[in-house]
Amino acid sequence: MSLLRYDLATNDWVIFAPERTQRPHDIVRGVNGHDFSEAAINPCPFCPGNESMTGPTIDSVRGHVFSNQSDWKVRVISNKYPALRIEEETRRFQESSVFRHMGGCGAHEVIIESPDHDRILAEQPVEHIQLLITQLKNRFNDLLGDRRFQTIVIFKNHGERAGTSLRHPHFQLIATPVVPQLLRIKHRIATDYFDQNGQSLYQVLLEEELKLGDRIIAENSDYAAMCPYASHVPFETWICPKRQEASFGNMETASIGKLSEILKTVLRKLFLGLDNPDFNLTINTSPRGDEFDEAFLWHLQILPRLTTPAGFEMGSGMSINPILPEEAATFLRSIDG
Amino acid sequence: MSLLRYDLATNDWVIFAPERTQRPHDIVRGVNGHDFSEAAINPCPFCPGNESMTGPTIDSVRGHVFSNQSDWKVRVISNKYPALRIEEETRRFQESSVFRHMGGCGAHEVIIESPDHDRILAEQPVEHIQLLITQLKNRFNDLLGDRRFQTIVIFKNHGERAGTSLRHPHFQLIATPVVPQLLRIKHRIATDYFDQNGQSLYQVLLEEELKLGDRIIAENSDYAAMCPYASHVPFETWICPKRQEASFGNMETASIGKLSEILKTVLRKLFLGLDNPDFNLTINTSPRGDEFDEAFLWHLQILPRLTTPAGFEMGSGMSINPILPEEAATFLRSIDG
Repeated sequence: MSLLRYDLATNDWVIFAPERTQRPHDIVRGVNGHDFSEAAINPCPFCPGNESMTGPTIDSVRGHVFSNQSDWKVRVISNKYPALRIEEETRRFQESSVFRHMGGCGAHEVIIESPDHDRILAEQPVEHIQLLITQLKNRFNDLLGDRRFQTIVIFKNHGERAGTSLRHPHFQLIATPVVPQLLRIKHRIATDYFDQNGQSLYQVLLEEELKLGDRIIAENSDYAAMCPYASHVPFETWICPKRQEASFGNMETASIGKLSEILKTVLRKLFLGLDNPDFNLTINTSPRGDEFDEAFLWHLQILPRLTTPAGFEMGSGMSINPILPEEAATFLRSIDG
Repeated sequence: MSLLRYDLATNDWVIFAPERTQRPHDIVRGVNGHDFSEAAINPCPFCPGNESMTGPTIDSVRGHVFSNQSDWKVRVISNKYPALRIEEETRRFQESSVFRHMGGCGAHEVIIESPDHDRILAEQPVEHIQLLITQLKNRFNDLLGDRRFQTIVIFKNHGERAGTSLRHPHFQLIATPVVPQLLRIKHRIATDYFDQNGQSLYQVLLEEELKLGDRIIAENSDYAAMCPYASHVPFETWICPKRQEASFGNMETASIGKLSEILKTVLRKLFLGLDNPDFNLTINTSPRGDEFDEAFLWHLQILPRLTTPAGFEMGSGMSINPILPEEAATFLRSIDG
């Protein structure tokens, strides 16, 4: 049973998911309390033929929806150790004047990218990436249909330093019953900027970057990829749509091919240039109710895990980046994607 | 030459310190671009006798101030790869309507805990920890005397997962020319709480925890150690002073012994109970000008690195904690510190 507790010192919620570990000191033994080594997880539950090792299929591309048959191309299942569950309550409990919690209501899904255990996303054909992104968009919109969920966070962890627990390539999707404080702050800043300037901050940032060009990595008719001016980590990369769109769920079907192309290009540049670096990928999108907000622009963020955030970053929230983004971008442009 | 760039999307500054790495792709080769393995760093520049391998001594306990002699007990030097430098400017430059930077003015010091390469902080005698904390307080107040510095972040990285670059135990101290956004937010929240309730939020949180007792790990006349109600990571531990004190720099000399005792107890419990876990330690304290604020309480935070923040945490800013703090505290209380 999971729950959320309110941190009055930061005005944010913390998710507690005790089922993700066993006893307190078990956590010492492995990532997040489980032994996720290749040896320990054999056979791979995400490989075709092993469908019965996971929960039932929630959705799949060109397979049999709600079945556990093996002829799928992209497969969606529930996370076996969910951070949040649809069965939990959203009711809030005031334990004392300063302690408040709520039920761990939400969803936690895994999107298995392909049947191929060893083929990383950068090596998938553009057509397959298109199937995957279509599936992500469908799951995003399906979950947004549940009015208890405020924000849908789509993410991918590649490599051990990025917190991967299973090697078979997959995305995850967590629906939360609250809007995280970070997203509230970003949205408030974007709204203030729009009020003061009559323009979307993200559109202005993108236009400035396109005009200068030195931090742009790749570009096509619908999207641009760049290492942003104030990159928090080395080789941080954003992929932004060129037309105003606050929500990932509203992305036009016709532009999914273009997104797949530029995503593959960027991932191949990182893979070849930086020797298959560990990275996290997340999609920043507006919370429920702001899907048509002119002030915000959804964007995909890739955060390579080449440096380790340490005590300074924890204590101050600020980042120390040893590489200027224009140098990172120049290097990535020189790599044949 | 380092600089800070303003991130208009989050209203925070990012520190760029290009001297901390060589060329873009060098970063792949080691932590933060340097090869910090024991083999590569031999002999250890922090060991007595090797003083000439580092910059000059800024301060030392019972040694020769501003000398490089070897009879020191605690030694303060400049970081060889500083994130910020006192020589840089604080002037701000508006590059365009959305791009703004300032000079990387600040300070970055290393406090070598003792001459002993292999003795971790949990194994130091209380009397030695007292010398160390006195030195940290002295450096904090000395740097706060420079009016260009707004916040002094004191921290320690223990173990590779916590971002340590050198094994010889040491603290670090970074003085920043801006107040980090995270600290601004925490301060604003504390001020609002004080305005609305007439009490310090941190004092109320501490009193509630002491009343309940189930998340308290250790306590003496001047300090209490606890796993807070909304712990962001497993075994997160706060040490709080019992009397109102906004700034670490104002800690009474008479209470340093009590802080040293409880810090040693907590570190030994973590060391013995969790098999010498990697952790970050930071001191949360008020920024310049708020040293006597009644709304804020300085506190020491220990953040074990047992789980890996992944894409969800990066994308949402929220934490997923697999262990309830009352279970973590029960476990730590059972360990003989």
